[in-house]
Amino acid sequence: MSSPLLQQLVEALRILPGVGPKSAQRMAYHVLERDRAGAERLAGVLAEAVERIGHCERCRDFSEQPVCATCSSASRDTQLLCVVETPADRLAIEQATGYRGLYYVLQGRLSPLDGIGPAELGLERLEARLAGGGVAELIIATNPTVEGEATAHYLGQLARRHGVRPSRPAHGMPLGGELEYVDRGTLSHAFTSRSELT
Amino acid sequence: MSSPLLQQLVEALRILPGVGPKSAQRMAYHVLERDRAGAERLAGVLAEAVERIGHCERCRDFSEQPVCATCSSASRDTQLLCVVETPADRLAIEQATGYRGLYYVLQGRLSPLDGIGPAELGLERLEARLAGGGVAELIIATNPTVEGEATAHYLGQLARRHGVRPSRPAHGMPLGGELEYVDRGTLSHAFTSRSELT
Repeated sequence: MSSPLLQQLVEALRILPGVGPKSAQRMAYHVLERDRAGAERLAGVLAEAVERIGHCERCRDFSEQPVCATCSSASRDTQLLCVVETPADRLAIEQATGYRGLYYVLQGRLSPLDGIGPAELGLERLEARLAGGGVAELIIATNPTVEGEATAHYLGQLARRHGVRPSRPAHGMPLGGELEYVDRGTLSHAFTSRSELT
Repeated sequence: MSSPLLQQLVEALRILPGVGPKSAQRMAYHVLERDRAGAERLAGVLAEAVERIGHCERCRDFSEQPVCATCSSASRDTQLLCVVETPADRLAIEQATGYRGLYYVLQGRLSPLDGIGPAELGLERLEARLAGGGVAELIIATNPTVEGEATAHYLGQLARRHGVRPSRPAHGMPLGGELEYVDRGTLSHAFTSRSELT
């Protein structure tokens, strides 16, 4: 590459997920050839986002304000609290379902081997919230992975200790899935938790 | 999305080629969760690149200097000049071949329907260079597309007018390609330009 700065740009672009050396190069050439205004805007927004986006005090989701828009909204049902692992999970639920309660974003999952315990996930704040009353149901929407399940188990106990009803989204065959192609774990789970046809 | 600034970041990321709404979102979350330092660096390098990277006066490739490193190098063979459409093409040749001559980057191809004529590609500068003597061979490495071939034809005439020998990289079956799966145009071309087995 003829320009050291261009080389630096290609390197810097590789921090983006799913961007290897070849796509980084294509991106660098593309913005320089076609969209310098867009690149300038991206540079500005990126710097501003890194500086100003922190975490909501109440739900730990990303927010520019101390308390995010959802948590400070008057139209949400404060009796429902949904725990998710990441902001992306929260967004997926918000977009796909009609859920109108509040969220709590763990920003991770319990993983003792990686040194991630209840303190790292800010669970004392969640516990204080459950202890404070006002929450009737804790919907534990961690991922159905080994660590997600362990986290769900831990949170379930936490909820019960404070008289809050824990629940978990149903797991089973995805809609439109074909039995033949569903993975074993899911099929076995779906089979065990079968429900009566009504 | 809970933060308007996050929304802006997702929008801004979509200027990158091959990045749709879903990947832009994943990228935004990723950098905020995992790599704020990298994002800050990217923002800085991107702004600097847009501001400082221009075109080399001699070859029109990207360069921070008025004349790029290749054009000002004493170790390149100035008798050979290779014309390519884009900086990426130039890089591909530089990386794959042992070519030690100079380059000329068109930053496009002749395309009358899009209003791209010889002036838009800076061909008067290329012509001045050919007229100035010193170039023995013009290697025309435009893409084997309709427009690339038309550009090659035009450049070939230009070269001959100034007593410079024009050449074109060989076209035919790619190495490791299987006859059955090579596209018709390539196969037909390869068949017509067959050479005697020695």
